[in-house]
Amino acid sequence: MTSVLIQGGRIVTAVDDYQGDILIQDGRIEAIGRQLSVENAECHDAAGLLVLPGGIDAHVHMETPMGNDVYTCDTFETGTKSAAFGGTTTIIDFAQQFHNDSPKAALDRRLAAAEPQCCVDYAFHVILTDINPSSLAELPDLINQDGVSSFKLYMAYPGVLMVDDADIFRTMRRTGDHGGMVNLHAENGVVIQALIEEALEQGNTSPKYHQLTRPSLMEGEAAHRVIRIAELAEVPVYIVHLSAKEALEAVVEARDRGIHAFAETCPHYLFLDESEYDAPGFEAAKYVMTPPLRNHDCQHALWRGLQFDDLQLVATDHCPFCMNENPLGILKSKQFGRDNFNRIPNGAPGVELRLTLLYDGGVRAGRINLNRFVQLTATAPAKMFGLFPRKGTIAVGSDADLVLFDPNETHTLSASTHHSLVDYSLFEGREVTGKVKKVFLRGQCIVDGDEWLGRSGMGEYLPRSASGRVL
Amino acid sequence: MTSVLIQGGRIVTAVDDYQGDILIQDGRIEAIGRQLSVENAECHDAAGLLVLPGGIDAHVHMETPMGNDVYTCDTFETGTKSAAFGGTTTIIDFAQQFHNDSPKAALDRRLAAAEPQCCVDYAFHVILTDINPSSLAELPDLINQDGVSSFKLYMAYPGVLMVDDADIFRTMRRTGDHGGMVNLHAENGVVIQALIEEALEQGNTSPKYHQLTRPSLMEGEAAHRVIRIAELAEVPVYIVHLSAKEALEAVVEARDRGIHAFAETCPHYLFLDESEYDAPGFEAAKYVMTPPLRNHDCQHALWRGLQFDDLQLVATDHCPFCMNENPLGILKSKQFGRDNFNRIPNGAPGVELRLTLLYDGGVRAGRINLNRFVQLTATAPAKMFGLFPRKGTIAVGSDADLVLFDPNETHTLSASTHHSLVDYSLFEGREVTGKVKKVFLRGQCIVDGDEWLGRSGMGEYLPRSASGRVL
Amino acid sequence: MTSVLIQGGRIVTAVDDYQGDILIQDGRIEAIGRQLSVENAECHDAAGLLVLPGGIDAHVHMETPMGNDVYTCDTFETGTKSAAFGGTTTIIDFAQQFHNDSPKAALDRRLAAAEPQCCVDYAFHVILTDINPSSLAELPDLINQDGVSSFKLYMAYPGVLMVDDADIFRTMRRTGDHGGMVNLHAENGVVIQALIEEALEQGNTSPKYHQLTRPSLMEGEAAHRVIRIAELAEVPVYIVHLSAKEALEAVVEARDRGIHAFAETCPHYLFLDESEYDAPGFEAAKYVMTPPLRNHDCQHALWRGLQFDDLQLVATDHCPFCMNENPLGILKSKQFGRDNFNRIPNGAPGVELRLTLLYDGGVRAGRINLNRFVQLTATAPAKMFGLFPRKGTIAVGSDADLVLFDPNETHTLSASTHHSLVDYSLFEGREVTGKVKKVFLRGQCIVDGDEWLGRSGMGEYLPRSASGRVL
Amino acid sequence: MTSVLIQGGRIVTAVDDYQGDILIQDGRIEAIGRQLSVENAECHDAAGLLVLPGGIDAHVHMETPMGNDVYTCDTFETGTKSAAFGGTTTIIDFAQQFHNDSPKAALDRRLAAAEPQCCVDYAFHVILTDINPSSLAELPDLINQDGVSSFKLYMAYPGVLMVDDADIFRTMRRTGDHGGMVNLHAENGVVIQALIEEALEQGNTSPKYHQLTRPSLMEGEAAHRVIRIAELAEVPVYIVHLSAKEALEAVVEARDRGIHAFAETCPHYLFLDESEYDAPGFEAAKYVMTPPLRNHDCQHALWRGLQFDDLQLVATDHCPFCMNENPLGILKSKQFGRDNFNRIPNGAPGVELRLTLLYDGGVRAGRINLNRFVQLTATAPAKMFGLFPRKGTIAVGSDADLVLFDPNETHTLSASTHHSLVDYSLFEGREVTGKVKKVFLRGQCIVDGDEWLGRSGMGEYLPRSASGRVL
Repeated sequence: MTSVLIQGGRIVTAVDDYQGDILIQDGRIEAIGRQLSVENAECHDAAGLLVLPGGIDAHVHMETPMGNDVYTCDTFETGTKSAAFGGTTTIIDFAQQFHNDSPKAALDRRLAAAEPQCCVDYAFHVILTDINPSSLAELPDLINQDGVSSFKLYMAYPGVLMVDDADIFRTMRRTGDHGGMVNLHAENGVVIQALIEEALEQGNTSPKYHQLTRPSLMEGEAAHRVIRIAELAEVPVYIVHLSAKEALEAVVEARDRGIHAFAETCPHYLFLDESEYDAPGFEAAKYVMTPPLRNHDCQHALWRGLQFDDLQLVATDHCPFCMNENPLGILKSKQFGRDNFNRIPNGAPGVELRLTLLYDGGVRAGRINLNRFVQLTATAPAKMFGLFPRKGTIAVGSDADLVLFDPNETHTLSASTHHSLVDYSLFEGREVTGKVKKVFLRGQCIVDGDEWLGRSGMGEYLPRSASGRVL
Repeated sequence: MTSVLIQGGRIVTAVDDYQGDILIQDGRIEAIGRQLSVENAECHDAAGLLVLPGGIDAHVHMETPMGNDVYTCDTFETGTKSAAFGGTTTIIDFAQQFHNDSPKAALDRRLAAAEPQCCVDYAFHVILTDINPSSLAELPDLINQDGVSSFKLYMAYPGVLMVDDADIFRTMRRTGDHGGMVNLHAENGVVIQALIEEALEQGNTSPKYHQLTRPSLMEGEAAHRVIRIAELAEVPVYIVHLSAKEALEAVVEARDRGIHAFAETCPHYLFLDESEYDAPGFEAAKYVMTPPLRNHDCQHALWRGLQFDDLQLVATDHCPFCMNENPLGILKSKQFGRDNFNRIPNGAPGVELRLTLLYDGGVRAGRINLNRFVQLTATAPAKMFGLFPRKGTIAVGSDADLVLFDPNETHTLSASTHHSLVDYSLFEGREVTGKVKKVFLRGQCIVDGDEWLGRSGMGEYLPRSASGRVL
Repeated sequence: MTSVLIQGGRIVTAVDDYQGDILIQDGRIEAIGRQLSVENAECHDAAGLLVLPGGIDAHVHMETPMGNDVYTCDTFETGTKSAAFGGTTTIIDFAQQFHNDSPKAALDRRLAAAEPQCCVDYAFHVILTDINPSSLAELPDLINQDGVSSFKLYMAYPGVLMVDDADIFRTMRRTGDHGGMVNLHAENGVVIQALIEEALEQGNTSPKYHQLTRPSLMEGEAAHRVIRIAELAEVPVYIVHLSAKEALEAVVEARDRGIHAFAETCPHYLFLDESEYDAPGFEAAKYVMTPPLRNHDCQHALWRGLQFDDLQLVATDHCPFCMNENPLGILKSKQFGRDNFNRIPNGAPGVELRLTLLYDGGVRAGRINLNRFVQLTATAPAKMFGLFPRKGTIAVGSDADLVLFDPNETHTLSASTHHSLVDYSLFEGREVTGKVKKVFLRGQCIVDGDEWLGRSGMGEYLPRSASGRVL
Repeated sequence: MTSVLIQGGRIVTAVDDYQGDILIQDGRIEAIGRQLSVENAECHDAAGLLVLPGGIDAHVHMETPMGNDVYTCDTFETGTKSAAFGGTTTIIDFAQQFHNDSPKAALDRRLAAAEPQCCVDYAFHVILTDINPSSLAELPDLINQDGVSSFKLYMAYPGVLMVDDADIFRTMRRTGDHGGMVNLHAENGVVIQALIEEALEQGNTSPKYHQLTRPSLMEGEAAHRVIRIAELAEVPVYIVHLSAKEALEAVVEARDRGIHAFAETCPHYLFLDESEYDAPGFEAAKYVMTPPLRNHDCQHALWRGLQFDDLQLVATDHCPFCMNENPLGILKSKQFGRDNFNRIPNGAPGVELRLTLLYDGGVRAGRINLNRFVQLTATAPAKMFGLFPRKGTIAVGSDADLVLFDPNETHTLSASTHHSLVDYSLFEGREVTGKVKKVFLRGQCIVDGDEWLGRSGMGEYLPRSASGRVL
């Protein structure tokens, strides 16, 4: 296999920042040096560019059934291509156990669907919805043999996905000793359900009520609750898509006492706020994701959390639904909830925008530095979810997943230029500075400007080691 | 200059951990690779060893006058040689302004003393004791031209070193815009003075009263106070030798609100406790350092602080005084305070033991991982005090300050084998696992086992960039 | 009706403390003065005695079915006589709604049982277990017409008494506007259920496992949760039998933010601790109450809470079960759980000991003063639960419920001398100072030393005004 | 002496609220009853009125030298008459020790000045400014023989009134065992001094800079500091005129840990805010008091503190200076600082408005109830400063200091109608509901509507018992 040489870039890891060349052989980083010269290497000039570890998006939902014949509108193929164009070379998606279903079977179904399609490397969290002695008994093997070391449970969506506190506790007890970690969608589902019923009884059906019936307080409550349960179980715990300052306060309070509570947030919580729900007509449905967008206080708190490591990583919760059309013909769009906010498919796109948004609004805005940017988007996800050191850094021996990033190029975000199948962008028309120029997956250049050089199915499944063992 | 090649080690940085070879040219890291081969290189076999960035000890006091003709008993030469044997290749010592003195003159005096002697690289914090318009006016140049970006002020020792809150505030205001940071010895000096007087009036003169008159509460109070002053001045702030959980709580509370409060702790606070003051006779004088050793609750809190980055680095506050003899003949020993705890020279040795203690009691004990160990001992000090990326990491272009560390060798700590001039060890007889085998300063092997290969005066002064700009 | 004159006592209220005479007419306080003289009055000499408002015990369970044919072993008659001998002249018991039951019917059943028996005045909290539109619809009338302004919900005992968070929220919403307040048994029932199953699976059946499966953390979690739900519902909230410092911390955190969270604790949590569970054999079953006894840290926290009004009142949770015999022949004793801690009837006696224990261990021990003692045992319960100013104080116009209390008499607590039917005492053999000498219910002397002067059925039902409106 | 009978009022204490008659003999309350009849009594009809305990204002400055020949503009006579018209029947003023002065002498000077003039009862806190072995030695006798159990120290005003932390600690140690308590003006004086110098150097001389140079953070810092010092000294501590939420947070944090920290706030902090400093020209000088007015967040926090007993009492800090004229001819007015905010006499009037403001904006606004109103204005000051039970309540045996208050009368506040000599009102033109109708001092009616029935010199000095012993 040909050697690849990336020359003269500014190499940035979660801790380092220096000029150098990177030599790639067999898809891995062979050497890093001041001026490497290799015969017959495929050379890429990175002068003036940042060389970053390929992004890892720990929270995406590709071609996922959401009930009622609703599916997210990106396939593994389109979704991972969109990821690649955004500088993300690894995704962690979900495999959902249904009722009377085996977690292992759930994983196998998703592996079969993903394998021929994925354009970047991939792994899965397993979602548990039917927790009983039999399904619990499968988990150690899932961790140790299948490389699935994280399990997502829902405290929201009663009757659909929600499990009770006892099941959370039992799952923690069962997986913790084997290196497994439980990830939580933390919202008090039943109180929210009562609020939704209250709203609908009063004839309040517009998208704004999605936000008004999912108050910050109930995200904070659930986060606090599950952290206490993890404390009792003596295991680490991870909160997905944290959006509310009350939830962050629960994380902070726990960490201040030495409890290993972790959390991710998402770009939309950092860059958008609840005022979007005032959009006229059904436009606000674009922003119907869960948790909903919050207020400025929450935004401010989230940025502080990112700065002080009380939030450990940024994922997208890419969960796209079209507004008006449906590219695959058979899937329902946001219109499904036109007359009832509670039927609007919950979720929003974002897998392609994470690096550029966080660079523009984080690094350039002076809120985080470049090392922290890499930490949040690549290194922390790799370490949190057992992908390190193969993924998440630029070091000798690691996979050569690399992004050449122009820190100075300005461009405009739009659904018309993104690579997802979804027909809108949360950030339509936003001008940002910082752009992905080239992307390498295991040494192979798959994105070159606007050109796609990869191929479907080239992504590899990544069995993972223990999750949550960050000290 | 000959190339140097360090082969086959396990290279550990604050984020990475991999096998590789390091090629050094002109004292800097030229390349890192899986199997580098260079002709005519001086080769060192690191198989089975950790390759760590050279330690940076941000808090030492070599040949320092402490009043009453008392000096610390290590010269720049003996102290830095001791540092080198302990795997520390950079020290930051202090230059003290006296009354009616110029800060710049204070720096020059120390530079003149250090230059011919130092065996490792060195820098200085400047201690300010006489803060007035004239001395404040010097500070921007000290930062920008002399590379001194940190200034230590004392909230303790009234009448000797203490400055008042207004002077702290004025110094912060004056230095903050230029990239300077204020470091504080945080104890409420005047209340402690009242307690000391109370103790002496009651005839309580034994060393134990050193501890009893310096309560944790008064360290916590001072830490809280100075953080609030820094918040008002809108500058970062750094607490030296933090020992009390109350002080840590002040740091934590501030960080939880987004205030850039930083703190270091020292190995003796992590591994020893107040029970040492119950030693018979005058033995307890060995442990008379300020702040004093604390209780188990404090130890527990400090470890949590290190784990969750509420404490950012570990320094030694190496401030050695002999117990019974005096190697230089002219300096006073701990005996000076035999009849009055308040006259015992305050301080204890430690520059040589930091890495081995923290490895043994931190990494091996499961409290921190290897990356965090490197962060605390090398990378964080470098970033905190403007030495990065020249120092503090293993990356292409950085100084080749490297430690080959055997993680499995067990040995016994003792004054009989250490390289400081001081005649006792805080850790006499303690068996530890983990030992410095070779040390490289800018590519030159200066320590090889028990053999000293360096030379006095080979250490270079390090002008520093901004302090406290960690995001 | 004859006037009654209580002469020369030291009259203590929640705020005042003075010498005086009290004139009673028609069961109410007619006048208080320095030296009142009335012709033909029944005179009682209170010289040297404290004159206190009659105690109000806001948490008792008389002749209560606990499932499995288990009933608490005091009838309304024996239980209220025991209360009277302890200086308590008002109790608030519970009326439990069963499944497919009407809350109003539940109240009526209990009123019918209580009316012919009660020796002191009484009121009821209504326990809701089947919350649905129909039962919720009854609540406003219960508050406004029946004088039941407090509703108890269980977060523990899944499948038996537990309701979910949505039902708690709905009950708060429905009752808050009418002056109703929700009282919570705050423990995470399902996680505790998982712990119980875990213990039993491992063959751990002894009484000690009652405590080990009900950790403080899960009481704290539930308290925090329900306070957040009340915050969302914008109503006050009241935690019964708070025992864990974690739960108190949740109350404190809320109050510090202006949330009207209230809580009671019980004498056994103040004076006993978890070491009781180490008693040999089945003896520890005496201490099987819920929540279980806690550790010293919790005790310390509870006392601080009482001192700083973070705990507002002290009730007994009198819930007696015999150890070895059964006075009524048909009721099961603690022996029911001899082979399985989970079947031991949960509860312990105490209605008779509250004043003497709290005086001895609170006032005499210097933890609270006399005014606070009255506040905790009489005034706060009256104000919290809508009985003030008729009950809970010594003021002109209030019911003449009075206790003459000898602050200096020492006696020994024992099951052999108490007036409850239960066959053991939690405080057997404890010597205490402070003794109830005479008790007046609406002006009538019902207890005189060891003599009973009252009669069954003389107690009156007390309809109550709004609960939780304390500012 | 004639008996006095107050008939048919609604009697309100800190805990009770009932209809009744009050019989007064020899200046004390002889009896309280439903319908008292006494021959030859002087009768006052209180139907429709509240009968309240006479107010106690624990913080006033009558005819007080402030340096530079500046005196507050009320004499003991005019100030106490103003107090009486406002329903305040006891004041606690200050006796200031100067340098090289005896605290006892300071008290005697003030006693001599006050005795012939005072229209209401009075006591003194002693201000210590020169703390040394000799002055400390006087304090036990001041407490035990002279009845001065509270000592005020300043953490502000360096070079004038400020003492250092050691002196605070020494005073606490010396007075605590004898029942003395230290009261603090809590602001970091030296940092504020640095800010003032900074402002003046920049030519910022207008009154607004008084506020801008006294930031909330520095009040919070000082409050925290002194609470920690009190914790070390193991004594209660009292913060005067607390205005900043940061200071309240320090009090709350301490109380949550069981530390006996107390604080008062003042009506102007509750009802006015920093926007007053935007008044044109020199008008803002009216609001130049220390601490300055704060923002809405602080107001909100203060009200919560009053509701949850984290603030224990409301005093006025009546410290009047005329704006434009000077009624006594020799005293300087606010104009003294026309060209330099730092020379504006610090202080504002208020002794007459406390009850009516707090009733209108507190009770009527639904923030506190009537009992709490009495607690804050009368009972808490009496208990806090050793005047209870003689003062501060309506109980048999207490002094008959009573206020008949019309809860429904609306009137307008104005300098043209108040009884202080000061030429402006902080609340000019404010319409309030609730008015003092009659005032009794030890049974004698001294205010009847707008008529003055008392006489100068009728006020008595009140020796006090221990301060700060509230449990």
